[in-house]
Amino acid sequence: MVKIAVDGMGGDFAPHEIVEGIKLAVNDFKDLSILLVGRSEELKRELQGFSKNIEIVNADEVITMNDKPREALLRKKNSSMHKAVELVKDRIADGFVTAGNTGAYMAISLFTLGRLKDVNRPGIGVVIPFKDNNFGVIIDVGASVDITPRDYLILAILGRTFLYTITKNKNLTIGLLNIGEEEEKGTKITKEAYKILKENLKEFKGNVEPHEILYHKVDVIVTDGFTGNILEKSYEGALEFTVDVLKEEINKSLVYKIGAALLKPALKNAFNKLNYENFGGSPLLGVDGISVKAHGRSKRNAIRNAIKVAYELANNNLIENFKQELEKITQ
Amino acid sequence: MVKIAVDGMGGDFAPHEIVEGIKLAVNDFKDLSILLVGRSEELKRELQGFSKNIEIVNADEVITMNDKPREALLRKKNSSMHKAVELVKDRIADGFVTAGNTGAYMAISLFTLGRLKDVNRPGIGVVIPFKDNNFGVIIDVGASVDITPRDYLILAILGRTFLYTITKNKNLTIGLLNIGEEEEKGTKITKEAYKILKENLKEFKGNVEPHEILYHKVDVIVTDGFTGNILEKSYEGALEFTVDVLKEEINKSLVYKIGAALLKPALKNAFNKLNYENFGGSPLLGVDGISVKAHGRSKRNAIRNAIKVAYELANNNLIENFKQELEKITQ
Repeated sequence: MVKIAVDGMGGDFAPHEIVEGIKLAVNDFKDLSILLVGRSEELKRELQGFSKNIEIVNADEVITMNDKPREALLRKKNSSMHKAVELVKDRIADGFVTAGNTGAYMAISLFTLGRLKDVNRPGIGVVIPFKDNNFGVIIDVGASVDITPRDYLILAILGRTFLYTITKNKNLTIGLLNIGEEEEKGTKITKEAYKILKENLKEFKGNVEPHEILYHKVDVIVTDGFTGNILEKSYEGALEFTVDVLKEEINKSLVYKIGAALLKPALKNAFNKLNYENFGGSPLLGVDGISVKAHGRSKRNAIRNAIKVAYELANNNLIENFKQELEKITQ
Repeated sequence: MVKIAVDGMGGDFAPHEIVEGIKLAVNDFKDLSILLVGRSEELKRELQGFSKNIEIVNADEVITMNDKPREALLRKKNSSMHKAVELVKDRIADGFVTAGNTGAYMAISLFTLGRLKDVNRPGIGVVIPFKDNNFGVIIDVGASVDITPRDYLILAILGRTFLYTITKNKNLTIGLLNIGEEEEKGTKITKEAYKILKENLKEFKGNVEPHEILYHKVDVIVTDGFTGNILEKSYEGALEFTVDVLKEEINKSLVYKIGAALLKPALKNAFNKLNYENFGGSPLLGVDGISVKAHGRSKRNAIRNAIKVAYELANNNLIENFKQELEKITQ
């Protein structure tokens, strides 16, 4: 059995959609069992008698979206998020999933699980869909800003190993997020990162620009947490804005509404393809344990998918793979 | 008369679309005259006898998209881009427009025109459309990476003054591009930039995240050239990708094609609204002269619009406005 601890109280639609997502997951994966963490009375009500492979672990406190990471870390030790991460730390659970407060998630995961040897700055990896229906990973999208050139190398290894763990593809390529193709482009730090990546990784293919990412120029895109977060929120913002503007235009005439009705399945497919949140979860990579963050707005399917990510990473020995790959580079 | 020098040889569709854009511009603006710079024989042929308010200035060399900025700057002194910028420097022209090589454009503008007093690092300002049909500016989107906190302050003043010059709006607000709302978010540099902006500019409204920009959180978005370029190319890439994926989906069935046909004007409107390139030109702000860059892929309308930008900036004394505003801050 693979045991995944799930924070039952985190996210905009907790606990209802979390519990529904868990039900989907345990039905889909035979050897999955869930430790559902949170206010037990509330969670029991949500389960409505459903109990297949689900065990409730009580936690009285709840971290809200407004809690500051530092305060959540230090003051809410009895929160569902804390308890769920501790189950991973104590090797009771094989992985952990939450849709709660991102800052608190990073702080609590990092502090509770600790860093892997040789990892100075962990990174959040976000899975992105490519035009050709493959997918890749961008790391880091927000955990670590102001990193050193060597941190880029470690992030590259974490990202590649993560992607290998879920795809089994041994020929993954790596690119450095930058503002031009040439080696001399970018900031002082990205120029140094370029050198260190080139020297150490034969699968490094040079710089990649934001508009090239989705066309699958490389599989793993390495960047610092500041730039990666700007990139992620820009994609997200452009997509949201496009949908908004389209809706507004469509509402201007009946003919448009009819056109949109005919086109609805195609529009839905397209925007589903564009929405990388469908992948379900973004792990914090570089900590000593499997820790997956689902988007705060996750409903049941996204939660089910985030659990699937944690389940697959646990099943395929992510942490062992990390240790092996990191050892190679630091010998 | 306002005289604008136009690089007739720069851009993917030069000289044909450049010349056509010029024709549109001189027809639209009565007191505009154009100095059309490039290979005179070729340009004469393109003009086909059209000569209203257009004078050809010969330049034998052409800077291509493949020329390195440094080489274009030092080795192609007889290029149309060099000559056009020199017309501004010598106060023969009131402003300059090119759709040519961006790196060469920045290098030649900066070197030939020089910086305004108090400007250490100039910035490219890109005009963006907001959801509410107003527009704003992001500065810098690629001229200056690795800038100091004080450079952010200067960029803010340049961006605000530029936007004021074209809108006459005295109540423009300023935001710092960042990865969170709180003052303590971001890199060491953005944290210091936050402080200096807050201390010096009463219209500073704090941090703005990428997905908030298009919803008009503030009018002027300040950032370094690395982050701004990542932002711009992410928007661009997300938009291109969305159009690609939509087209692919639509081609899957006849019903979708009919829906798309009915919806065509709405789709066109929406994507026109999203396409900030329609504004026409992005100026390099902080140099001592009006210097406007049109997108390399510009066709006649975009060229006409870029000339309009240069014309309006010249007509409304951009450089004088800069000098006044910069003086206020440095007293």
